Amino acid sequence: MTRVRKAAVDYGLYLVTDAGLTDARLHEVVTAAISGGVGIVQLREKATPTRAFVDRARALVALLRPRGIPLLINDRVDVALAAGADGVHVGQSDMHVGDVRALMGPDAIVGLSVETPAQAKAAEHAPVDYLGVSPVFATATKPDAAPPWGVAGLCGLRRMTRHVLVGIGGIGPVNAAEVLHAGAEGIAVVSAICGAADPLAATRALRAVVDEVRVPVRI
Amino acid sequence: MTRVRKAAVDYGLYLVTDAGLTDARLHEVVTAAISGGVGIVQLREKATPTRAFVDRARALVALLRPRGIPLLINDRVDVALAAGADGVHVGQSDMHVGDVRALMGPDAIVGLSVETPAQAKAAEHAPVDYLGVSPVFATATKPDAAPPWGVAGLCGLRRMTRHVLVGIGGIGPVNAAEVLHAGAEGIAVVSAICGAADPLAATRALRAVVDEVRVPVRI
Repeated sequence: MTRVRKAAVDYGLYLVTDAGLTDARLHEVVTAAISGGVGIVQLREKATPTRAFVDRARALVALLRPRGIPLLINDRVDVALAAGADGVHVGQSDMHVGDVRALMGPDAIVGLSVETPAQAKAAEHAPVDYLGVSPVFATATKPDAAPPWGVAGLCGLRRMTRHVLVGIGGIGPVNAAEVLHAGAEGIAVVSAICGAADPLAATRALRAVVDEVRVPVRI
Repeated sequence: MTRVRKAAVDYGLYLVTDAGLTDARLHEVVTAAISGGVGIVQLREKATPTRAFVDRARALVALLRPRGIPLLINDRVDVALAAGADGVHVGQSDMHVGDVRALMGPDAIVGLSVETPAQAKAAEHAPVDYLGVSPVFATATKPDAAPPWGVAGLCGLRRMTRHVLVGIGGIGPVNAAEVLHAGAEGIAVVSAICGAADPLAATRALRAVVDEVRVPVRI
């Protein structure tokens, strides 16, 4: 199966899975998120043995690809290659994006987390498809995260980079519109969907915000 | 730089690094082990971020390749590919060896740990270059390891498989000869070198055992 076309990717609502939050419900949560309108999914597993990680990735590729939704793998190029995933998302202590691009090829989606303006500046000519602006707000999912960018920080970043920006960290229905207005092409969420009692309803609510900001009502 | 030729690999004395034991001494320990006569090295990092793992792997490739000594990476095909390492060693919960072979190519060295006769039987037609017989003896390095094969178990395994066998687990100068006499082509050690006060002397002592068993004195 060939990868999802990069040009067709909708970064508006981006689901990042969390093994701790979804547990055995991974498939169920992702299925609900698809129905609710996510445009891209990242599988993040920090403590899963490689074999099980590859199995999960393959199952998600089988679920997402027929719907044209790309699957990215957090950190692990080997898992992405073995599972035939659409791309990889890396952080600052993961593999260098130049190495990721060399291994994954030009058609893969490569995302990079930036936690400071200096990191964003260093990434300006890096072979990435988007920057994950992390964290926009303080979050409980990553207690070791850097200080938040805030809406003002995101605005400033929007002016200094040509890259697609996806905000992540502490984003939910209440503050999603702010992030998009500040200049992010999309919002990435973990607990707002994975930790919701009703992941489908939670996804729909976020999708509604994204669609509303994107197509402003004309008076 | 092209990989070390598989046919030229000497499995007799195989060093597996341990981040906990070597710490900042990694380079020093491997340099001593080279001088002492190891024929193959595996870099094992269980908690190191990917970027630092790749950096360490590259540094070891630069050290080992000019000497014709292959470097294998434990578990991580992505790190092996990025660093241009010679191969990958996987365990039973790591990537399937079929996937490893597909990603690494036919010239790479692929090793698989087997902890039971059933696992060894399942690996008989697997695309591997050697089996790591783990553990031969009880060991403190891997407290979660399976029950030891023992010398008798290794003898039995030797009769049931066509693969090259490398014993690992609790092997030192005192019992190394037994492992080779039981039919292993080589011995792999972690703490016997990485944990030694004098890694060069420790390697030389093990090498002497390997050479002695291989070239028996004729009367």
